[in-house]
Amino acid sequence: MVNAGAMSGSGNLMDFLDEPFPDVGTYEDFHTIDWLREKSRDTDRHRKGASAYILNYLMYILWALLFAFLAVSLVRVFAPYACGSGIPEIKTILSGFIIRGYLGKWTLLIKTVTLVLVVSSGLSLGKEGPLVHVACCCGNFFSSLFSKYSKNEGKRREVLSAAAAAGVSVAFGAPIGGVLFSLEEVSYYFPLKTLWRSFFAALVAAFTLRSINPFGNSRLVLFYVEYHTPWYMAELFPFILLGVFGGLWGTLFIRCNIAWCRRRKTTKLGKYPVLEVIVVTAITAIIAYPNPYTRRSTSELISELFNDCGALESSQLCDYINDPNMTRPVDDIPDRPAGFGVYTAMWQLALALIFKIVITIFTFGMKIPSGLFIPSMAVGAMAGRMVGIGVEQLAYHHHDWIIFRNWCRPGADCVTPGLYAMVGAAACLGGVTRMTVSLVVIMFELTGGLEYIVPLMAAAVTSKWVADAFGKEGIYEAHIHLNGYPFLDVKDEFTHRTLATDVMRPRRGEPPLSVLTQDSMTVEDVETLIKETDYNGFPVVVSRDSERLIGFAQRRELILAIKNARQRQEGIVSNSIMYFTEEPPELPANSPHPLKLRRVLNLSPFTVTDHTPMETVVDIFRKLGLRQCLVTRSGRLLGIITKKDVLRHMAQMANQDPESIMFN
Amino acid sequence: MVNAGAMSGSGNLMDFLDEPFPDVGTYEDFHTIDWLREKSRDTDRHRKGASAYILNYLMYILWALLFAFLAVSLVRVFAPYACGSGIPEIKTILSGFIIRGYLGKWTLLIKTVTLVLVVSSGLSLGKEGPLVHVACCCGNFFSSLFSKYSKNEGKRREVLSAAAAAGVSVAFGAPIGGVLFSLEEVSYYFPLKTLWRSFFAALVAAFTLRSINPFGNSRLVLFYVEYHTPWYMAELFPFILLGVFGGLWGTLFIRCNIAWCRRRKTTKLGKYPVLEVIVVTAITAIIAYPNPYTRRSTSELISELFNDCGALESSQLCDYINDPNMTRPVDDIPDRPAGFGVYTAMWQLALALIFKIVITIFTFGMKIPSGLFIPSMAVGAMAGRMVGIGVEQLAYHHHDWIIFRNWCRPGADCVTPGLYAMVGAAACLGGVTRMTVSLVVIMFELTGGLEYIVPLMAAAVTSKWVADAFGKEGIYEAHIHLNGYPFLDVKDEFTHRTLATDVMRPRRGEPPLSVLTQDSMTVEDVETLIKETDYNGFPVVVSRDSERLIGFAQRRELILAIKNARQRQEGIVSNSIMYFTEEPPELPANSPHPLKLRRVLNLSPFTVTDHTPMETVVDIFRKLGLRQCLVTRSGRLLGIITKKDVLRHMAQMANQDPESIMFN
Repeated sequence: MVNAGAMSGSGNLMDFLDEPFPDVGTYEDFHTIDWLREKSRDTDRHRKGASAYILNYLMYILWALLFAFLAVSLVRVFAPYACGSGIPEIKTILSGFIIRGYLGKWTLLIKTVTLVLVVSSGLSLGKEGPLVHVACCCGNFFSSLFSKYSKNEGKRREVLSAAAAAGVSVAFGAPIGGVLFSLEEVSYYFPLKTLWRSFFAALVAAFTLRSINPFGNSRLVLFYVEYHTPWYMAELFPFILLGVFGGLWGTLFIRCNIAWCRRRKTTKLGKYPVLEVIVVTAITAIIAYPNPYTRRSTSELISELFNDCGALESSQLCDYINDPNMTRPVDDIPDRPAGFGVYTAMWQLALALIFKIVITIFTFGMKIPSGLFIPSMAVGAMAGRMVGIGVEQLAYHHHDWIIFRNWCRPGADCVTPGLYAMVGAAACLGGVTRMTVSLVVIMFELTGGLEYIVPLMAAAVTSKWVADAFGKEGIYEAHIHLNGYPFLDVKDEFTHRTLATDVMRPRRGEPPLSVLTQDSMTVEDVETLIKETDYNGFPVVVSRDSERLIGFAQRRELILAIKNARQRQEGIVSNSIMYFTEEPPELPANSPHPLKLRRVLNLSPFTVTDHTPMETVVDIFRKLGLRQCLVTRSGRLLGIITKKDVLRHMAQMANQDPESIMFN
Repeated sequence: MVNAGAMSGSGNLMDFLDEPFPDVGTYEDFHTIDWLREKSRDTDRHRKGASAYILNYLMYILWALLFAFLAVSLVRVFAPYACGSGIPEIKTILSGFIIRGYLGKWTLLIKTVTLVLVVSSGLSLGKEGPLVHVACCCGNFFSSLFSKYSKNEGKRREVLSAAAAAGVSVAFGAPIGGVLFSLEEVSYYFPLKTLWRSFFAALVAAFTLRSINPFGNSRLVLFYVEYHTPWYMAELFPFILLGVFGGLWGTLFIRCNIAWCRRRKTTKLGKYPVLEVIVVTAITAIIAYPNPYTRRSTSELISELFNDCGALESSQLCDYINDPNMTRPVDDIPDRPAGFGVYTAMWQLALALIFKIVITIFTFGMKIPSGLFIPSMAVGAMAGRMVGIGVEQLAYHHHDWIIFRNWCRPGADCVTPGLYAMVGAAACLGGVTRMTVSLVVIMFELTGGLEYIVPLMAAAVTSKWVADAFGKEGIYEAHIHLNGYPFLDVKDEFTHRTLATDVMRPRRGEPPLSVLTQDSMTVEDVETLIKETDYNGFPVVVSRDSERLIGFAQRRELILAIKNARQRQEGIVSNSIMYFTEEPPELPANSPHPLKLRRVLNLSPFTVTDHTPMETVVDIFRKLGLRQCLVTRSGRLLGIITKKDVLRHMAQMANQDPESIMFN
């Protein structure tokens, strides 16, 4: 049985329109019926049915458009950062990038409100990804209350990692899946301490969720599934096929979606986000309404597809032909031939699948909050259920075939189509996101199907392999790339044999590195240097001749220190000597008061030698989260490598455009 | 119901001794009974019962001693490394230490065989921890077949991490728990690539396990549990109490066990390992046999304790007084008053608990393979079941109390004592090992109790907090410390404000750093230096005056290079100049042929400045897995920091004896 939780969306919207009129057209006891009236009422009923259908249809579209319009307008006016799933940006932020306002209070408020609206509008999107963004906004808000976290961007990121875990924990009722999702998919730097804190955050989130009891069943589990038969070895073959399907769909989706998003960015299309949302919503509503499998909310659909047909099941998917001789009212119903309802359901599902595949490509990436988990799972669940019914009917009608003979005797319940739906959902989600461990944990926390861990794992592994064969990037990495964020992926392996000297600046022929000397430059010299360059910082050396490195000074801190000194310290003029040493240099008697700047000098800048392989340099940048690294030879400063240089070099080595890295 | 899997051990050993004699002493139809004979037979039965009991008792002890003696002798003679759980050593190996033979073929063979023997001997130990060692031996064997892994100690460690995951996967039938155990508890360097590979290894392991189907029930789950009632908010209080108990037991166990193991290491006790095993086995057998809860195998015991009393349950723990008016044969039996059997079970469990707590302290660390998972879980399960029965009876007899009134109406099934056993088991395991996420995942993979994730998490968190309050080290870290392995724990935070200059050698007053110059030392100079010192390597500088660093040469490689050159290259004599530069130095005309050693020079040694905070240095050592790091100031070489220096400094800062770090 399936315990359908989280019934959201527009499927329930129209129920009030179908109210019957009580007692109209019934007869008193001991009266004669009016044959003619009855006949016309029958026609009436058809006519009324048709007109009620059209009315519902129109209302459905109108409500959908209204909700979508409201959502896109709110996002545009109040919080442009509230759009999308937010996961690519959160990944980038956690890797050490600053996007001001992305996790702000307005984003939190607007994303929460518009998320309800877009899910209700019946668009092909989910609320789970955006909930991670919402949770990170909360995490950011709470960390701004404590100076330990608000003043340290590293500590703040630990809180955000835990918040991401809590977000998935409430989105799916999957606390452990949430922690693993944060570890595998979202976080960059994830020490064990953060694992433990994320675990605690996810615990409290799950506990709060259970106390609120939103699904009214005292369960955390969103799509609770109880199957009555184990799976058989031979079924691994269709499961792996579903894995292949998931991988292919993932590849197709990522390619098409990225192509469409690139077109949106580069053509006029991007200038009409409201119109785009309205058009897509209208198309979705018009095509979705006639098909019962697309009309309802997607979580309801997934629930039904995961369902095992029990004895009391009234779904169209469970319309099997019962053996009249068999009367036992047990759960463990043997395989039966499919009835008319099942065949109807099959072609409706096929149409729904095609529609869902196409429309999701255009929906994800619009200027509204939109998650990808639920649509991906729906695609997989539909494909899986169809394969499952196919295998079930094949096994029923051909149980003498050699592959079925060992495990499927006539009158036995051998194939559970709902399990195929579950496996298909995992495969498609895996194909799009390239999750592995977290995917399986989320799936079995979602469904409670602990027994089916091997099929889920097999499908996840196959799906990842197939998808990786066509391109290493998951949808989130693809969007990061599309937007040119400076994200140094921990998953990519750098195996080229280049050296630090090949990547560092200045290159051969370029002007020499802009450096400061420890005690021979004037305030004016430094101000000129700052004005003429836009580097984030400058290495400080003993002298231009020896070039022995003593430290690194940040541009921001230099500017502030000079400004402060000019305002507050007397005697600091343009030709004051600046010194970074402990003691002031010996100066002629009449020279102006020197300016001590040791305070802004970082005495432990990171250095590598020019012979260090880039493989090691990339590893150091990743693991220590560096922004820049100085290159020396025999103690002499040669050059500098910034994170952007590393990213450019990696793009170049992977035959991509190095200029796609846009930020610093 | 509980599906008791993995019935191992000596509990089943004696069944054949109790065989009844068929048809002896029965009467034919229509015959008169012999009253006198019947009476004497009754006495007989008592006498026979007593003598059979004594016979069984003796046989039980004999078998136990035989098995234990065989096991300890095999370990002593063939593979001394096969003793213990192996997890502390594997942690150390994975952190980058070499223990030759620890993962060898003999260890694999002997540990597998003796593990069966010690579990059968009825000692208070489990097979789960040692199975991780066994799996790592297999991993090591397979990686020795492929040069990619056998020749690279880093790659080999990636395979071992995955093997550890596979080990737990088969030990508990918990593939995801295995991956997380490897991540959280065993592995040191765990990139996402390894996560993914471990996941695959665990998948194959689980799949193979399921194909072999050792428990005969097509389930992966070891202690499958199905409870019929949800848990209630108010029950969190006893769950947290169990967490506190788990934390306290963990602390007590670690302290006592380490004290005992230290005594074994430092006194004569350590010289008689065979005798020690024999004595402990004899004591265990003598005390364990009379109590039914210690006589049986520990996994059976845990199975029974996790059990929910269904209608058909015949266990003593389920001897409740049934309401005679109630006849419905449902699963969902309301709470009933405890019967005589339950009270008997309570004091037997109390005795068993005390015995288990004491004997496990002496068992873990003996020279036989011994795991700690199952004994810890048994302690927790016994305590938990007792608390559970207590709460159940309290709720039954006082359902008008304010705390029970909301959730426990008379005639309802509100308290499940088995759940308390499960929570207690998790708490005790957490207290000993300090696992968090992996613990919860293993527990719910073990039992299938996905619904009870919040109680499990609450108990695990409490247990860790309580235990951490008394000492940060889990049992495995404590044993690493006891043995003085050079293990740089990734979990410890280093927050002291010392600098690299405080830790580096040479200290003030010590002789200067032994360095090589790039082109002015003779072969003899270097040979003398190698002879007089035992350093693992030497920094190479431009000259003794400038002290500008150009690289680092390993002792081992220097020795080999000189030996090779002396044998094969003509003209290399004791006063040949050694040079590390690209070009040979200009030498007087009659000087001997110089020796080029650039090949053995590491041109990218890791350097930090003397002002680098030790917090950063520790971080660099951990994340990059360094063995040593050179310290410079303004490009000049000042000193060196080795891993041992870092460990010593950390011990000093934590007010521990720095000389407890024994290896380099």
